Amino acid sequence: MNIDDYVIEKARRASLAARMLSNAGTEVKNRALLSMAEKVKRDKGDILRANEADLKNAKKSGKNNAFIDRLSLDEKRINSMADGLEKVASLPDPIGEGIKMWKRPNDLHIEKVRVPLGTIGIIYEARPNVTVDASALCLKSGNSVILRGGKEAINSNSAIYNIINKAAIGAGLPEGSMEFIDVTERKAVEVLMKLNRYVDVLIPRGGNGLISSVVENSTVPVIKTGSGNCHVYVDSDADLNMAEDIVVNAKTQRPAVCNAMETLLVHKDIAEKLLPHLGDTLKKLNVQIRGCSKTQELIPNIKLATEEDYAKEFLDLILAVKVVDSLDEAIDHIYKYGTKHSESIITNNYASSQRFLREVDAAAVYVNASTRFTDGGEFGFGAEIGISTQKLHARGPMGLSELTTAKYMIYGEGQIRE
Amino acid sequence: MNIDDYVIEKARRASLAARMLSNAGTEVKNRALLSMAEKVKRDKGDILRANEADLKNAKKSGKNNAFIDRLSLDEKRINSMADGLEKVASLPDPIGEGIKMWKRPNDLHIEKVRVPLGTIGIIYEARPNVTVDASALCLKSGNSVILRGGKEAINSNSAIYNIINKAAIGAGLPEGSMEFIDVTERKAVEVLMKLNRYVDVLIPRGGNGLISSVVENSTVPVIKTGSGNCHVYVDSDADLNMAEDIVVNAKTQRPAVCNAMETLLVHKDIAEKLLPHLGDTLKKLNVQIRGCSKTQELIPNIKLATEEDYAKEFLDLILAVKVVDSLDEAIDHIYKYGTKHSESIITNNYASSQRFLREVDAAAVYVNASTRFTDGGEFGFGAEIGISTQKLHARGPMGLSELTTAKYMIYGEGQIRE
Repeated sequence: MNIDDYVIEKARRASLAARMLSNAGTEVKNRALLSMAEKVKRDKGDILRANEADLKNAKKSGKNNAFIDRLSLDEKRINSMADGLEKVASLPDPIGEGIKMWKRPNDLHIEKVRVPLGTIGIIYEARPNVTVDASALCLKSGNSVILRGGKEAINSNSAIYNIINKAAIGAGLPEGSMEFIDVTERKAVEVLMKLNRYVDVLIPRGGNGLISSVVENSTVPVIKTGSGNCHVYVDSDADLNMAEDIVVNAKTQRPAVCNAMETLLVHKDIAEKLLPHLGDTLKKLNVQIRGCSKTQELIPNIKLATEEDYAKEFLDLILAVKVVDSLDEAIDHIYKYGTKHSESIITNNYASSQRFLREVDAAAVYVNASTRFTDGGEFGFGAEIGISTQKLHARGPMGLSELTTAKYMIYGEGQIRE
Repeated sequence: MNIDDYVIEKARRASLAARMLSNAGTEVKNRALLSMAEKVKRDKGDILRANEADLKNAKKSGKNNAFIDRLSLDEKRINSMADGLEKVASLPDPIGEGIKMWKRPNDLHIEKVRVPLGTIGIIYEARPNVTVDASALCLKSGNSVILRGGKEAINSNSAIYNIINKAAIGAGLPEGSMEFIDVTERKAVEVLMKLNRYVDVLIPRGGNGLISSVVENSTVPVIKTGSGNCHVYVDSDADLNMAEDIVVNAKTQRPAVCNAMETLLVHKDIAEKLLPHLGDTLKKLNVQIRGCSKTQELIPNIKLATEEDYAKEFLDLILAVKVVDSLDEAIDHIYKYGTKHSESIITNNYASSQRFLREVDAAAVYVNASTRFTDGGEFGFGAEIGISTQKLHARGPMGLSELTTAKYMIYGEGQIRE
């Protein structure tokens, strides 16, 4: 079978399953998730052996340590996948929720009801846990899922898929609820991105290269996740201790993630009080600082920040710093360089806090808190399929509700249109 | 200036305006809409003269009557554009609405607030009224708009744009709130479809060819509107009079629109009672019927329906009819041929009505009512930018709320992530 036919057939099967899944009861979905959790734990030996093969290939082809880390599984990580499945089983089922109901003057009774999106394609890279996490959220929200992981993780993903798919079908979900594309050719993704007939949405999960490539080439609607060039702005009226705590947290608590701070903006009136001490603290935490010329006067021995530094998502212990003349200059800077992910102001000034909240255009805008809270778990959603950085459909952390759409159900008694 | 630079500059201006518009007050937006209405009425002479020029060109190039009708403006149509502007001014402002608020265990207070999408591109064909209608909805919801109408209406659209844009700026909206692309080369659309940096969403309005071309070529997110292959299914337990009234209404009240019925499905147990009389009625209303072989036995002198007939959106006084053995066959038929727009069942059977509502996958699913009600006005939204037939972002009739997105505003007191 050629790759076109192979992918089309997988998508067709997923689309057929979606029709049945959309009416699957909460109990059968939860039973499937719990069985998947149990079988992942029971068959962890198979998963670890497959992962061993992937790791051997990755090392042979000279992948770096960060890559190897993302690819690696161990008993702890496998247990954590199983825990995730159990967690999703425990969340409320979003399907069937009445979003709104009203009656028209002609007595038509209209209900807007939450229903699944249909078939969701997940295109991801080397993290095998995505196979489990994404499947769990898609199935719980009544969607079928087509999985397409990176070729470097093909053995791990394939082993995991075989286990969880068997468990799900065994528990009563329709065949085709999960489809896994086990050819590694790039062509398979190209076909998938054009299958509007069978696929309702694609969610790419991985680096910027992957995401841009899907956005550019897909005719299927895409939810863009990920890239975050986040700022913290310390206003002239900030509490110095709070500012330092938040800056340190936003930069160093987990620098490699999208909600970590990349640029610090400081009002000129507070720069002299804040920056020398904060600079010392950050240096002790191994943060490399790149600053504007005013910053260089207040923190010795740092590089001059370039335009590229302000535009870059370092995802590392590197911080760009700029001293600004006003709140307006801070907001302008964020408009120019931000990626509309997460932005925070530290201030005790009411007017500044309100202007920042209203005028900064981002998925999450904070007053006096770390940008690190932009996360489905931290928001209380129970789970997260990613953080949307686009404005259409969903914005910010996406939980189960964001994997649904609506349907109008209209109850009549013979109404016709005049 | 080359076309690339021209379009990029328009989009850049619209994007700058969006930043200001997102915080424009309801009063200034309403004042702009009312001034636009006033100036459209005052300067109708300019619009009619420009329309005359377009009509002359259209006739010269041999456009058909339906096309000429869509392009034509007269005093009544211009007044109706002005009325539309006044209507939108009278609708509640969707911006700033609190969608949800909650508190986390760490005392972070999270608000999910409705905000504009940003910059919306409208790509349309020969109806000049879209220039006014789309602008009104975009501006009221705080979005800037980039208008790109068909080349056959360039004079009419340009005249209308000049009037309403001047009125809007005069009333206090920022320059760039409305941008009009007045070059007719196709290249301009191609550039617009790739401007993710400045354009947040594209809404194509027009025929299937236009819509597919935008969906296929745009990297900017698209909301797909329009195509409706709608069904009415008359169940064995239907009221015969109600069934006939609804079928006649859904097919003939306005056959050229997307929510008109295209195929009638009839349960075999009621076919003999329903179809002979209904066939007569439809024929008297000049409806051309194409039926399956069983239908041919009950309605004399009709053509056999082909696969293509069942798949086609006639948008005309043509109806495909099929006698089915069961509710399941009806639902299967709709899955196979429907476009997920509007579907109706006529029945007095409770179980059948519930199964149809749940199992049919469409934006609007009706029991005992005409499909013609799928419309922003009929749903009570006050206005409509189109009817979405995709599942992402918006589904069904789209009013002002559907031109918005959300932003999380988070109030802290120094919270950091552990």
